[in-house]
Order: sequence, then C-alpha cells, then structure tokens
Amino acid sequence: MPQGKVEVVPDDGLTTRQRRRQAVLAVHTGHGKGKSTAAFGMALRAWSQGWPIGVFQFVKSQKWRVGEEAAMRQLGNVTWHKMGEGWSWIQRAGTERDHAAEAAEGWAQIKRDLAAETYRFYVLDEFTYPMKWGWVDVADVVATLRERPGTQHVVVTGRDAHPDLLAAADLVTEMTKVKHPMDAGRKGQAGIEW
Amino acid sequence: MPQGKVEVVPDDGLTTRQRRRQAVLAVHTGHGKGKSTAAFGMALRAWSQGWPIGVFQFVKSQKWRVGEEAAMRQLGNVTWHKMGEGWSWIQRAGTERDHAAEAAEGWAQIKRDLAAETYRFYVLDEFTYPMKWGWVDVADVVATLRERPGTQHVVVTGRDAHPDLLAAADLVTEMTKVKHPMDAGRKGQAGIEW
Repeated sequence: MPQGKVEVVPDDGLTTRQRRRQAVLAVHTGHGKGKSTAAFGMALRAWSQGWPIGVFQFVKSQKWRVGEEAAMRQLGNVTWHKMGEGWSWIQRAGTERDHAAEAAEGWAQIKRDLAAETYRFYVLDEFTYPMKWGWVDVADVVATLRERPGTQHVVVTGRDAHPDLLAAADLVTEMTKVKHPMDAGRKGQAGIEW
Repeated sequence: MPQGKVEVVPDDGLTTRQRRRQAVLAVHTGHGKGKSTAAFGMALRAWSQGWPIGVFQFVKSQKWRVGEEAAMRQLGNVTWHKMGEGWSWIQRAGTERDHAAEAAEGWAQIKRDLAAETYRFYVLDEFTYPMKWGWVDVADVVATLRERPGTQHVVVTGRDAHPDLLAAADLVTEMTKVKHPMDAGRKGQAGIEW
C-alpha cells in the first residue's frame, strides 16, 4: 500500500500537498478480471469525497456493468454515459463505420467535459478498444488527457492499452488472469460478472 | 470478458444453470493496485442482486477503505466488520500475540457466518496476511472455504496469497504494478487511495 515514505522526492518545486493533489491518470489493463471493477471501486472513494463522477461506458453489451450502474445511480452524483443510448454503436445493426463514428462521438463528449471540468473523477470503461481499433485518434486522446485542466482524475480500463497511453499514465496496473471459472467450463453469473 | 462459449464442458452432471450458480471463491493478489477496489466493485454487483454482503477488513490502518465503507453503508445491506473495532489488533498497543489473537477472532466470526450462511457475498479484505503470518490456520481456512454451504461467494484480497488458497480458488487475478505515482515521488491522496 502506498503509505509512508516515497523513495525519490522530485525536484519539481511543488510541496508534498501540491503533489498530493495532482490529478491522476490511471490505466487498468491486462487480460485478467478486475479492470473495471477496480475502477468502480475507486469511484466509491471519489463519491465519498463528494466529487462529481462521469462514467463513459464503451462496452460491448448492455448486460455488463448493470450492477455497478444501479449502485452508482443509487449513490448519486454520477452521470452515466452509455454506448447504446445516445451512442448507439451496439444496438444499431450497423457497420464498422457506425461504431467508429459513435465511439468518436463519445470521445468528443469526454473532451468537452474535460475542457469544462464537468467531473472530478472519470471512468472511461473499455476505452482502450476504440483507441486500439483506430476509432479515436490516439495522439488526440493522449494530448487531451495530458493537458486536461484542473484536478480531474481519469481511469481508463481495457485490454491492450496503447503504449502512448501507458506512457502518459501515472498509475498502471496490469490484471493478469491466473485462473478463471470458465477454465472449468463455468459461465458468467449475475452478481459476479455483472 | 467471460461471455460466449466455454472451451470445455465439464462432465460433472450439472446443467449450465446449476454450474452458473456455483459459489465462487475469488482471490485478488499481486503487488499492484486494484485488489481491494476490484473486490468492492464486485460488491456493487452483489448489492444490485439484493444479496446481503459481509465485509471483513483485515487492514493495517483505519484510513484505508473509508470511501468504500461510506459508500457501501449508504447503499445498505452490508455488514462491515473491522479490525480495530471489536478485533482491536491495530489500535491496541499490543504485541504480535495480540494481533494474532485478534485475527483468529475475526476468522472465527467468518466461520460462524459461513456456517450460518449469513451473507451471500463476502469480502475478506487483506486476509492473505493473517494467513501468511500464521495467525490463522491455512488448512482450516482452505477446508472451511471449500466446504462452505449454499451459494456464498467469497473474495479474498492481499499480496502473497498462499498456494493452497490459490488451488482452492475458482478465480484468481494477479494485479501487477506497471507504474505507480509513488515512482514519481507522489504520495497517496484522498479519493484515489482511500
């Protein structure tokens, strides 16, 4: 746990308190479980601080995150943006082209919110995929995140995070699958996977 | 994500539905962040299912998990057991012996709750440490978890999970640190680390 002494005190002219308040860009990547659940666990901490939370859900199925969404909506102070509502890239019987356009639209909304400092904590859930597939411009994403104003914490989840995103991130955790119930022929279940 | 077809259909005489409802023992281990936050993210899913949740917090400081605790208490249907209250292994100016006794007391409570099927979802937060330090009997823990009745899902978090616990688990994710703000001389901050 990150308590106690740091190993290197940076020569950045900041006090510990200033450094402590720096905005964090976190990336949860890897092929194991827990990338998104850990992001929503962090959102509980943000909620407890009274911070406005923006969730941008770039996932592939309406089924995912229903538990997190229900709980976060119950807590309040969260705005939940979802592909398939507004950005209808899933439900529409669309082409690759549509998906790309919808993902780009989602990213444009995130950019507007970052510029306006709409939220203090952002979950960009499964956002590594539109980056990987070229649906959003990686250089634009990285520059926008690097230059975001104020103290806006951002967590990006998903496999195969782009190296430039990792380079820009302050905190990167790789979730590695060691063992999964599907290995034993078991399928996902309510309360565990969603 | 664990959707779609499983690779091996086990010859266990169970239907897919029965197998889907099997209780899950998950372990989040490794030296990276996200072990506990992912457990609490899972708890949101459990909460959304209406399941009673029991949290057993074997952590080292009262500061940790305050955000998760505040949010989960706000949601309700959660019972939060905490070292330092009841099992006062931290706050008491005790010896190693006290800590061991308090951890054992916590484990005894978990055993009673598992036997009584008090909860449907358990978070045993940082429980790998009392196992590692010999404060609880590893064989007893593993046997009790393996033989727990009903459909009680259990998530154990912490570094250096015991191999026997991993062997008993259905789902093991290792969180690996790729990059951390402390590497750049930054300390933990509210809303991110607690």
